[in-house]
Amino acid sequence: MKNQYQGRRKFIQKVAVGTMASLSFPSIISNAFAAAKPKKIVIEKNSIILFQGDSITDASRDRNSMRPNDTGALGTGYAHFAAADILQQAADKNIKIINRGVSGNKVYQLAERWQQDALDLNPGVLSVLVGVNDYWHLRRGTYKGTIRTYRDDYKALLQKTKDKFPDIKLIIGEPFALPGSAVSKTWFPDFHEYRYVASELAVEFQAAFIPYQSVFDEAIKRAPEGYWSADGVHPLLPGARLMSLAWLEAVKLP
Amino acid sequence: MKNQYQGRRKFIQKVAVGTMASLSFPSIISNAFAAAKPKKIVIEKNSIILFQGDSITDASRDRNSMRPNDTGALGTGYAHFAAADILQQAADKNIKIINRGVSGNKVYQLAERWQQDALDLNPGVLSVLVGVNDYWHLRRGTYKGTIRTYRDDYKALLQKTKDKFPDIKLIIGEPFALPGSAVSKTWFPDFHEYRYVASELAVEFQAAFIPYQSVFDEAIKRAPEGYWSADGVHPLLPGARLMSLAWLEAVKLP
Repeated sequence: MKNQYQGRRKFIQKVAVGTMASLSFPSIISNAFAAAKPKKIVIEKNSIILFQGDSITDASRDRNSMRPNDTGALGTGYAHFAAADILQQAADKNIKIINRGVSGNKVYQLAERWQQDALDLNPGVLSVLVGVNDYWHLRRGTYKGTIRTYRDDYKALLQKTKDKFPDIKLIIGEPFALPGSAVSKTWFPDFHEYRYVASELAVEFQAAFIPYQSVFDEAIKRAPEGYWSADGVHPLLPGARLMSLAWLEAVKLP
Repeated sequence: MKNQYQGRRKFIQKVAVGTMASLSFPSIISNAFAAAKPKKIVIEKNSIILFQGDSITDASRDRNSMRPNDTGALGTGYAHFAAADILQQAADKNIKIINRGVSGNKVYQLAERWQQDALDLNPGVLSVLVGVNDYWHLRRGTYKGTIRTYRDDYKALLQKTKDKFPDIKLIIGEPFALPGSAVSKTWFPDFHEYRYVASELAVEFQAAFIPYQSVFDEAIKRAPEGYWSADGVHPLLPGARLMSLAWLEAVKLP
């Protein structure tokens, strides 16, 4: 799939820049963001913030609770950590936070449940992280979609969302993978295409882009890959917290 | 129970001081801490940090996982939030964090399981939050222990711990209660005795003291009690995050 997308190599070079070993967190996030040049999302009073995605977003959320801001309903991943900080800080702003990530989802599976699990919830801010399964399941032969399927399905999903809610604020997370029990070196460079497509869509839809791969690339200078994720796909506790801090960097609270 | 303890009234006046409505988090925590004058605990490399207490610490932790630093094993409360920040920030310091809070526990129940659930774990830092059930269950008639039982049992537990580990670093959390479905105004001033005893023991055992009641007293200037806790005893998501920030204020990472 090399050379399929103009600019891919340039993009990867750009986000991979990070020559200084950073020991304190803020500089790690700042370095990654300086490279990715994200848009800052302003969260308004009375906002409904919806997190969508796969298992990384799902993070064992309690399917029996549909209440916004509920501890169980938010899972124990990055969405939960971001929610806790937002709700603590913006306590008087009537913000509602919802998680509808579902383990194993690829883009077409988000699309299948998009009406009830996204549009019907009337989100003012929509955060999506999807892509690792689109590659992983193709690779292991349980899925036929290619990088082009990913791009076309993802674009259609975002377009449908924008058509329904022209003023919605979008946040797109970069798919990421670290060497781990589920991820070998042979994932790369093909997997990088998914990162690139996500960043490209973020630009196209004027979304904030959260460069998770770059954030983890910096983090592994502080502790080995296995500290942040055992399988290379699902973050462990410090990895999930790190992701939430990157996410929070992209928003401004009311 | 009025006038049972010398200095109680003075203490309560002291921690209740908080005349400025604080809108940003850091000043709230700082105000509460300025009043309580806590000791700062330095967390060393290779530390084992143990959280002990009742349901507020337990926070639905997974009893099937005993692994330190495991997401499920840490629950979803303040201990989990504090752990995530410590593990993210001090990624290369080989810190192990364990939660052994058990719902419903009073001090004597901590004592019953202290050998296996505290001493055997060889903690370098021990954080305890206990007291609300000691009052609540007495009040509702399912427990006979008084404020004196609480003080004597708690003191014996801490003394036993210090005898075994003379260099252990102790963190004592202030029991707290907010008006809520389980807490009426008639809890006060009697409940304040438990706060006072905890603070007194913190001084006696050179522990850091986390003034949770003062932290929540400040927080309710930003959003009503029910935003932080529905029943007045168990924090909701923003309340748990707030508690973790107060806890983290009392420690210095390696």
